Amino acid sequence: MAFPHPLSALSSRETNLARDIVKEAHPGSILYFRQSYLFEPPKEEVLKFLELEHSGNLHTTSPRPDRCAQVFYDIIGGDQQAQYYESVVDLTQRTIVEQEVISPEHQSSLTMQEFDTVVKAVQESELFKEKLGKIKLPTGFEPVIEPWPYGAPDIQDGNTRYFQALIFARDTRKGPDTNFYSHPIPLIPVMDARTKKIVRIEEAATGGKGDSLTAKTHAPGLLDHCKSAEYVPELLPGGTRQDLKPLMVVQPNGPSFSVEGNLVQWQKWRMRVTFNPREGAVLHDIRYDGRPIMYRLSISDMTVPYADPRPPYHRKQAFDFGDGGLGNAVNNLTLGCDCLGVIKYFNGVLIDSDGTAEDTKNVICLHEQDNGINWKHTDWRTGRAVVTRRRELVIQFIITLANYEYIFNYKFDQSAGIVVEARATGIVSVVNIDPGKTSDWGNVVSPGALAQNHQHVFCVRMDPAVDGNENTVVQEESLPLRMDRRTNPNGNLYEVRKTQITTSQGVDAAPFNNRVFKVQNLNKLNPITGNPVGYKVTPPPTQLLLADPNSVQAKRALFAKHHLWVTRYKDHELYAGGRYTLQSKIEVGGVSDAADRNEDVLNQDIVLWSVFGLTHNPRIEDWPVMPVEMLQLHITPSDFFTGNPSIDVPSDKDIGSRLTSGCCRDEVKL
Amino acid sequence: MAFPHPLSALSSRETNLARDIVKEAHPGSILYFRQSYLFEPPKEEVLKFLELEHSGNLHTTSPRPDRCAQVFYDIIGGDQQAQYYESVVDLTQRTIVEQEVISPEHQSSLTMQEFDTVVKAVQESELFKEKLGKIKLPTGFEPVIEPWPYGAPDIQDGNTRYFQALIFARDTRKGPDTNFYSHPIPLIPVMDARTKKIVRIEEAATGGKGDSLTAKTHAPGLLDHCKSAEYVPELLPGGTRQDLKPLMVVQPNGPSFSVEGNLVQWQKWRMRVTFNPREGAVLHDIRYDGRPIMYRLSISDMTVPYADPRPPYHRKQAFDFGDGGLGNAVNNLTLGCDCLGVIKYFNGVLIDSDGTAEDTKNVICLHEQDNGINWKHTDWRTGRAVVTRRRELVIQFIITLANYEYIFNYKFDQSAGIVVEARATGIVSVVNIDPGKTSDWGNVVSPGALAQNHQHVFCVRMDPAVDGNENTVVQEESLPLRMDRRTNPNGNLYEVRKTQITTSQGVDAAPFNNRVFKVQNLNKLNPITGNPVGYKVTPPPTQLLLADPNSVQAKRALFAKHHLWVTRYKDHELYAGGRYTLQSKIEVGGVSDAADRNEDVLNQDIVLWSVFGLTHNPRIEDWPVMPVEMLQLHITPSDFFTGNPSIDVPSDKDIGSRLTSGCCRDEVKL
Repeated sequence: MAFPHPLSALSSRETNLARDIVKEAHPGSILYFRQSYLFEPPKEEVLKFLELEHSGNLHTTSPRPDRCAQVFYDIIGGDQQAQYYESVVDLTQRTIVEQEVISPEHQSSLTMQEFDTVVKAVQESELFKEKLGKIKLPTGFEPVIEPWPYGAPDIQDGNTRYFQALIFARDTRKGPDTNFYSHPIPLIPVMDARTKKIVRIEEAATGGKGDSLTAKTHAPGLLDHCKSAEYVPELLPGGTRQDLKPLMVVQPNGPSFSVEGNLVQWQKWRMRVTFNPREGAVLHDIRYDGRPIMYRLSISDMTVPYADPRPPYHRKQAFDFGDGGLGNAVNNLTLGCDCLGVIKYFNGVLIDSDGTAEDTKNVICLHEQDNGINWKHTDWRTGRAVVTRRRELVIQFIITLANYEYIFNYKFDQSAGIVVEARATGIVSVVNIDPGKTSDWGNVVSPGALAQNHQHVFCVRMDPAVDGNENTVVQEESLPLRMDRRTNPNGNLYEVRKTQITTSQGVDAAPFNNRVFKVQNLNKLNPITGNPVGYKVTPPPTQLLLADPNSVQAKRALFAKHHLWVTRYKDHELYAGGRYTLQSKIEVGGVSDAADRNEDVLNQDIVLWSVFGLTHNPRIEDWPVMPVEMLQLHITPSDFFTGNPSIDVPSDKDIGSRLTSGCCRDEVKL
Repeated sequence: MAFPHPLSALSSRETNLARDIVKEAHPGSILYFRQSYLFEPPKEEVLKFLELEHSGNLHTTSPRPDRCAQVFYDIIGGDQQAQYYESVVDLTQRTIVEQEVISPEHQSSLTMQEFDTVVKAVQESELFKEKLGKIKLPTGFEPVIEPWPYGAPDIQDGNTRYFQALIFARDTRKGPDTNFYSHPIPLIPVMDARTKKIVRIEEAATGGKGDSLTAKTHAPGLLDHCKSAEYVPELLPGGTRQDLKPLMVVQPNGPSFSVEGNLVQWQKWRMRVTFNPREGAVLHDIRYDGRPIMYRLSISDMTVPYADPRPPYHRKQAFDFGDGGLGNAVNNLTLGCDCLGVIKYFNGVLIDSDGTAEDTKNVICLHEQDNGINWKHTDWRTGRAVVTRRRELVIQFIITLANYEYIFNYKFDQSAGIVVEARATGIVSVVNIDPGKTSDWGNVVSPGALAQNHQHVFCVRMDPAVDGNENTVVQEESLPLRMDRRTNPNGNLYEVRKTQITTSQGVDAAPFNNRVFKVQNLNKLNPITGNPVGYKVTPPPTQLLLADPNSVQAKRALFAKHHLWVTRYKDHELYAGGRYTLQSKIEVGGVSDAADRNEDVLNQDIVLWSVFGLTHNPRIEDWPVMPVEMLQLHITPSDFFTGNPSIDVPSDKDIGSRLTSGCCRDEVKL
């Protein structure tokens, strides 16, 4: 007998079944499907299943949670505004078990088809043609329409669903792959999603230092001073460099990991790797050497507010996970491009607007990498050196959001540590600026192209299970102490102060206090150190959201107020910025609300949310495609084991290394 | 004609010539040579030479600086205390040009021979035998003597040169490679270096929580509760793990770098790699695409104070660069162990006590590595993805200091960035603790072994040359602004505030302000952005020294008071903690003194000193050999170029990557 694991993503068959059940429940209606994916079973039921699974007691008659889908769809009826439904479909019972018509102050997440509608609406807009006509494009150029969510809406926008677009100009003589971002057109059309019509076209400011917020030049020849900036190799004026020799990762005996369905096992690690269109790759039931570490690990949310104060640029604020489309934004990874070595790819299931499953290939990749030395010691008396490498298992996914890309890596190492890494790359968002001007709101990275200052604030959600589900977060700081004849006679002592977090709340990083947070299981003491077994979370000490707390930018991203949130676990509370981020005016149902429940988090089933970010004041070296900026969250065992878990890693010599020689005399020859 | 480059390390021939000239200057004296290495020529002279070198105008008749050695030696005469000399020997003129008898309040750096003397003195000490006798060692165990510098001396120690030792017990039945640190003996002998006699043996405290600073149990059977903890593969009880398959880095066409003497060229980078026994690998004349970036880059200093307040543990404070012996502590690197791929090794020259050159092999290694994706962009309209890898050039050296090791990497990337990385590994320093006790001063990582809390504070010295030698440091912060109808109507604006540093001083990291420091050349503006060309230094926001400012620990490490120091360049001012750190009571001639000159650093030849560290409260996973803790300093171009320097890196598919399959159904089978 075979059946899907309760934490497995929905198969195509299950997805289509969900579609059929929804359709049957709405006979005669026109349905527009937005998203459909696994509705994870209640944790309580999953834990029972995992208990049986890990103890080897799973039988065909063992209870297991029903398979459920969450299906998001519009019911479109005549002239009236479509109604947005969220239903939970029990696939086992073949029935809808929950159904909610979402209140109009929340927007459903966007779809790619909606973006297509924006492009079409702008193209057909007479107003757009008129305004574009005033800006005479250079010969051979045509406009490119880049749909964006309508971020940080004004209060007077009410509940109307809007989209906006940024406009660029493409040099058609250079073919389809030319970089049109080098030619930004200062027009921002806004579309009403219900009517699919352009309701207005904002004429964006183009001024610089000393100019007012509205200063603009919209005149023929506006783009004439812009310069192309290509990144596709065949369009580079000088071609690509020729002196880089191949470097290959070769694993002659294959990888050290094994994969069975979504179950990945590697170096005492074991976890399930799944994909959903809201969060991308999600890891479940992470265990080391049979001991649970984490029930679930995911990228929960992210916001990217731009800091150019000139309306309507304040509406450039993306929530790239919650706004929707992440499923379609995930790159289909390619062998030999996105990682080296022996690669395992995972596919995902998306849907079309009819709710029918669409397989999407290679949305997650898995591979091993070497990251230098892991540990080394030489006994200087004997000269005996023992050195081991740091091998890592990498689970990677990449998303493209218009101009920009993010690379997310979950990395596992042999010392039982986990690193969550975000790399930001892609093309920085630029807007038009008058010739010769510079700006306080960004950096001129190319003539006529102002790369605006902005922030990226990420949130990683950790649902820990450190030797069980009742965990506690303990803040630990190292603090100076005064010299004291009795307790600190030479002044070298410092205090390690430990403070339990007892109530759900947001807390902050304090690197100058060496503040770390330990997720401990108070019910289990380390037999040698006497401390509770634990894992240490070191929140990256980065800048939090800068926008004024009274701004819509800040109110809709309350999660970005603190570096770490500790909340009580609640089923389906997964998204730091709330379920509905598209066009949100305030964060609802996000981590801030969860913390505000003031729940007991001492020795409870808890969740940690780590917030970190990047204040990105662009430099010209970020143009036209920026080298990665990297951020890392480290999750490390701390008195969880009884010694270094990687002490048994072999220190064998690598047989692939080679010597190279070079002229050995340090001489200048004339 | 061929001659040594002015920045080349001394050859063996030159080193021996220096010895001969010194010997001739002291006829009839008994000399004890400590160190001998290049005395770098005045920068002014080197710059003239580099100007000729880089403009292709170097001729046989071109002026070039004399080759000079700095030679440190004792003159030993009869009963009186040896006198310590530092001389500069002009090898070109064959004469001593500077000679200084060092005042007795400074100690010369230590030598390995002195450490040998400590071992011998302890072994021969009747007092030691007596005290050890009271602590009956387990059957088969013998004492191991670990010499240490006598850190953070007491005022009453005066100018006497002392050494101390930590004592452990080795299980002789397990052969020479057993880990004796698991059996710490609480005796600390102190030797007077002049008489080479043990002057006292401290009986160290062994108590725990609630005990006084002097509580101790020195009784037979003291070590009986200690447990062995091996790391050498053949001594591991379970052997090494068997499921790790080989991962090799293969470069079929060889490396992309070229090496000629100490000149390394790679991907538009060019630099000279040299070695000296005080700083290890030092990089000179770093240029990118012909433009100077840095005149000199080095690890300047480091201190490791321990925080156990119980005397004499406060004297555990190492200055691993300045205390001496670094040259001998540098690992001789081994193919296939310390890095993967195609490796180039560099040798170094040390001396024996007669001043005679000793070649030491493989003290620095050079290789390329892959570090994931460097930049990627996909046009979602066309699906065209361009992705390039991040290739890095790594210059590595590793030092072993008794129980501990540090791995230092200088990493260069194709986007013209530099990363200086320190990895801490090796065996954490442990002392004896009574059975069953735990401690506020550290963590019990093995029965009877208390790993004491401590800090590692590093200092990287950057002598920049951003498009010339007149540079300026500008602090840049991103700061919140209030909503304001006129200038910030929606509250999304933040201010990027730039402040020039005009006077030499220490400044601090402020990550929550996104504080970065730009080293700019105010005389050269970027033609597109209009900003001065620059490089950005992001000081790692780590905890500074915790010891009480009035403690000797703090006074002798004034450099550890600030995250970044900006000083005016001065020839031979290289060491953050001062030239004489061994047994120092206060930092003299270090970066604090340099800053106190209050010199103009606006548009001047300046030096930056980046201080960062690791507060290490050990966890049991650090035992017996700790997995690396990593710290990185990032030095990145910021408006130095006119675009991403790596835009021309080929995006060719790697032909070495392979697919692996796994069972593809997400099913549980019973």
